[in-house]
Amino acid sequence: MWARELAVSAPGKVILHGEHAVVLLGKVALAVALDLRTFLRLRPGAEGRLSVALPGVGVRRSWDTPGLRALRGRITGKGRAVEPLPRGTDFDESKPPSVEQLDALREFAGIAAGASAPESLATLAFLYMCLAISAKYGDVPSLDILVWSELPTGAGLGSSAAYAVCLAAALLMVCGAISCPLREGESTARWTEEELALINSWAFRGEQVIHGNPSGVDNAVGTWGRVPTLRILLTNTKVPRSTKVLVAGVKEKILKFPAIMNPVLDSIDAISQECQSVLEAMPANPSPEHYPVLEEFFDINQHHLNVLGVGHPSLDRLCQVTASHCLHSKLTGAGGGGCGITLLPPDTSPQAVEAAKQDLCACGFECWETKIGAPGVTLHSCSSLSAQVLHALARS
Amino acid sequence: MWARELAVSAPGKVILHGEHAVVLLGKVALAVALDLRTFLRLRPGAEGRLSVALPGVGVRRSWDTPGLRALRGRITGKGRAVEPLPRGTDFDESKPPSVEQLDALREFAGIAAGASAPESLATLAFLYMCLAISAKYGDVPSLDILVWSELPTGAGLGSSAAYAVCLAAALLMVCGAISCPLREGESTARWTEEELALINSWAFRGEQVIHGNPSGVDNAVGTWGRVPTLRILLTNTKVPRSTKVLVAGVKEKILKFPAIMNPVLDSIDAISQECQSVLEAMPANPSPEHYPVLEEFFDINQHHLNVLGVGHPSLDRLCQVTASHCLHSKLTGAGGGGCGITLLPPDTSPQAVEAAKQDLCACGFECWETKIGAPGVTLHSCSSLSAQVLHALARS
Repeated sequence: MWARELAVSAPGKVILHGEHAVVLLGKVALAVALDLRTFLRLRPGAEGRLSVALPGVGVRRSWDTPGLRALRGRITGKGRAVEPLPRGTDFDESKPPSVEQLDALREFAGIAAGASAPESLATLAFLYMCLAISAKYGDVPSLDILVWSELPTGAGLGSSAAYAVCLAAALLMVCGAISCPLREGESTARWTEEELALINSWAFRGEQVIHGNPSGVDNAVGTWGRVPTLRILLTNTKVPRSTKVLVAGVKEKILKFPAIMNPVLDSIDAISQECQSVLEAMPANPSPEHYPVLEEFFDINQHHLNVLGVGHPSLDRLCQVTASHCLHSKLTGAGGGGCGITLLPPDTSPQAVEAAKQDLCACGFECWETKIGAPGVTLHSCSSLSAQVLHALARS
Repeated sequence: MWARELAVSAPGKVILHGEHAVVLLGKVALAVALDLRTFLRLRPGAEGRLSVALPGVGVRRSWDTPGLRALRGRITGKGRAVEPLPRGTDFDESKPPSVEQLDALREFAGIAAGASAPESLATLAFLYMCLAISAKYGDVPSLDILVWSELPTGAGLGSSAAYAVCLAAALLMVCGAISCPLREGESTARWTEEELALINSWAFRGEQVIHGNPSGVDNAVGTWGRVPTLRILLTNTKVPRSTKVLVAGVKEKILKFPAIMNPVLDSIDAISQECQSVLEAMPANPSPEHYPVLEEFFDINQHHLNVLGVGHPSLDRLCQVTASHCLHSKLTGAGGGGCGITLLPPDTSPQAVEAAKQDLCACGFECWETKIGAPGVTLHSCSSLSAQVLHALARS
């Protein structure tokens, strides 16, 4: 039985370059870890109880472990289930969640078919990962899990992947599939490459429960993180957008003017590749002279994204405001509103950053001063967490 | 001897799409006639005098025709010249002006070698065209020529080509190389296709005197004009720019990031071609539903030109101001300041146009409400000219 109180964290992600080109051409987006993290607190639970609290989406559920064990048996067609499913299926990280598995979990948790609210999907992913991981590696654990995040949900910042990565790491560790690398007295520890690969595989299955057909980029970034470290402002315009509608619009434009639009996608893809090479050649903490080329890529790609039709007046405003402070910005993610990122070269004065933030807030935007190139999934002793995170976990 | 008082006019040009792609890739720019015109008034001169007045560039010169005849003989190595040039050369529209010809003309007119001021180049082109056309088709005429233009000079609007086209048409007509198509009582007339081709050839030679290595697009537009007719605002930001510096900057960017930049040039070229097809398929007076695609091309190309690095804050401002009136703009020509064009769909209210003009003027810009798709070189009876043009000619 699990006896330690620990925390697991995983970073969000931002797309630096290549949004849309990914969806449309199967090309690679350049996604990087964002140092806004999701924290999972893991505590021994009352014997025979598995509890989960997700205050960000208003979920607080608790199940008895014998009931979960019976459900698991019913789904796999093994164990002591009274009425196994007609086509019992094993849980395995090599297989995507099946329709039958998810239907059985929905029925058990009282989630309507087709429910797509974050709280429904988060609960479903939790149940899927608990049963699947415990079925493969051990018994359904008695645990008390609390997840809290610095990431806004639904903003294209990989919050669901960070959640799935934290859950996968915690559950795999509790079930003994991976080690507990944190020695007594240490504040943080990470897992081995092999263990990270297993965490990533299961996190991807969790992402599939939530998103259906995710690319796998977000959970990889949440698991491994990325270097080098770049300071950024992340600004949420708070303009809601539909990724589906935006992608459809881009597709339509490409069909309408292929000779005009396809070269733009080629150029975007070249930016992703060039930027990746530039980042790989950079030291872990780049100095000011490394920034102009990154800023140039931002400017070019922002124009390209406008050409694709995924700009928005709020994003134009964001770029203008930051340009007035000599800072370079681009939208990140689907566009049409949502979030923008602004590079903060190390020689930017704190006054300039503060002034830019104030101007952005005056537009009604929400602004985080943070970093990209954060560490991937990490295990923490609870005492080593920042006061802010401890406070958030205690309040929840 | 020429006995009638007539006027010749030719339109300026704007580049709708393809600026820079032309220079860099030898691709075709989509240039269209601009209904800001250059007017040449042609009067019989005092016997034995050839006079030219170009009030826009401060030129007022007069020569005796025997002196010009002797100069012509010296240059061609024929005639009664006392000291023919060492390598006498014929004038012909199939040959570019030679260094020796231009040196002899400069010496005669008192223009320093390498002088590049508009008044020097305009005088040189005038002398070259007079001598060359008269050498091939007739005698040096006794004429009084006055040229006045609605076009600003040096703004990339083809003012030198419109000047050369007017001169070529007037001189070819006076020397009998082309007809005088204006019957008594008619107000305007145009020449035949064959005559227009001859006017265009000679106008190109005049452009070579002024520009060295022109593309020939401007004189072709000045000669033939283009349909369909589109109402536009033409706005001069009055920000001075160096085409040479801008072109060098674009070249440098392409060398630095070929995989990113070359696709952008391909896209620009595709826009020129698509736009040309769209214009060719349009009626002479397009209705509102023809405009959205033209507006989309404007927006895309304006972003591309920014990616090439030839944008300017003044042009961003211009685009923003017109966008706030739901109008679409792009820079035209070299960029980095200079002129922008704004499409005015036929359903734009006069109030909206007026408001946009006022806002643009408030930015310190100069603004013309005009048309593209104007008629090419045209012969006018002087009495048929507008009061404004008559007034300008009379004042000069």
